Amino acid sequence: MIGKKIRNLLVDSEKTLVKPAEEVAVVGLKNRLNHALLILTTDKYALVPVLDDQSKMRGLISMPTIMQAIMNIEDVQFEKLGEIEVREVMDTNYPYVYEDFELEDVLRMLVNYAFITVVDKDNYFKGIITRSEILKGTNRIAHEFEKLYDVKDKTPEKERLYNKGRW
Amino acid sequence: MIGKKIRNLLVDSEKTLVKPAEEVAVVGLKNRLNHALLILTTDKYALVPVLDDQSKMRGLISMPTIMQAIMNIEDVQFEKLGEIEVREVMDTNYPYVYEDFELEDVLRMLVNYAFITVVDKDNYFKGIITRSEILKGTNRIAHEFEKLYDVKDKTPEKERLYNKGRW
Repeated sequence: MIGKKIRNLLVDSEKTLVKPAEEVAVVGLKNRLNHALLILTTDKYALVPVLDDQSKMRGLISMPTIMQAIMNIEDVQFEKLGEIEVREVMDTNYPYVYEDFELEDVLRMLVNYAFITVVDKDNYFKGIITRSEILKGTNRIAHEFEKLYDVKDKTPEKERLYNKGRW
Repeated sequence: MIGKKIRNLLVDSEKTLVKPAEEVAVVGLKNRLNHALLILTTDKYALVPVLDDQSKMRGLISMPTIMQAIMNIEDVQFEKLGEIEVREVMDTNYPYVYEDFELEDVLRMLVNYAFITVVDKDNYFKGIITRSEILKGTNRIAHEFEKLYDVKDKTPEKERLYNKGRW
C-alpha cells in the first residue's frame, strides 16, 4: 500500500496521469513495417501501440523490432519493409492496466517499461502512463514533502516497550 | 533543496545511481550510420552516447535521427547508411552532469530525458543515470516512507499566530 500523504503529492489525480488515446501515436495491425517506421521516426516515443480496426489494443512495435525483422546474418533487407505487416512482428507481451488501476501496480511496472498501456474492460485502448509523469511527482515529493509535513522517526517497537517498562 | 529523509530513501547513494561507462553501449564519432543502427537494434536503449577516440562525450544518436538522415520527401535512401558518419547527424545538445552532481538537477532533467550522461571535468564519459533507477527510489518512498516516519501536517503560520494571540 502506498502512503496516503506521499500519494497525494505523487499524482494530482489518477485521471491526469493518463495521456489520453487521441494524443498518442499508434499504428494498425495490418500496416506494413515501412509505415510503422515512418510513425516511429516522427513520433517522440521509441515504441508505439498497435491497434486493430476497432481500436482495441493488440501489441507494441519499436524500431529495434522492425530492424530485427528485416535483418539476417548477412545483411539488412530493406525491401521487406513494404512486405511484412506489423502484426507479424509486434510484441504482444506488453504491460497494461485497466482504467481503475492501482497506482502501486503502475509504479512497479514503470521500473521496467517506458510506458504502461491503459485499456478498458473490453480492451479498447484508452491511453498511456509515462515515466515522465511519475518523475514530475517524484520532483514534487523531493522538493515539497518535508516542507509541507513534520517528519519524525518512529520510535522502534522494541524501544517503546522498553521505555514503557521503565516508567 | 531536496528533503533529507526523502533523499535517503530515493537513492542508496549517488554512486550506485550511475550505470558505469563499461556497461553502456556506445558508438564512435566516425562510425557509419549502419554500425550505429546495428548497436541500437541490439541494445535496449532508444539512443546511445557518441564518444570520440579518447572516450570523451560528444553527442547522442537515436534511430529516429538515423532514419531522418536517410529520408527525403520521396523515399528512404538506405544506401546512405554506409556513407554518412555518426558525427554528421548526432545530437550535440544532450543533457549531462559532472560526477559530483546535485540529485535535484538529475531529477529535474529526467522529466524530459530518458537518461542523463555523466562526465568528468575533462569530458570523459563516466556513465549514465536512467529513469528506471529513480523510479526504483520512487517505489521505495511510496511504500516505505510513511511506515518509517511519523508524518504530521505542519501548523500553518497564520493559524499558529492566531492561536498564540488567543492564549
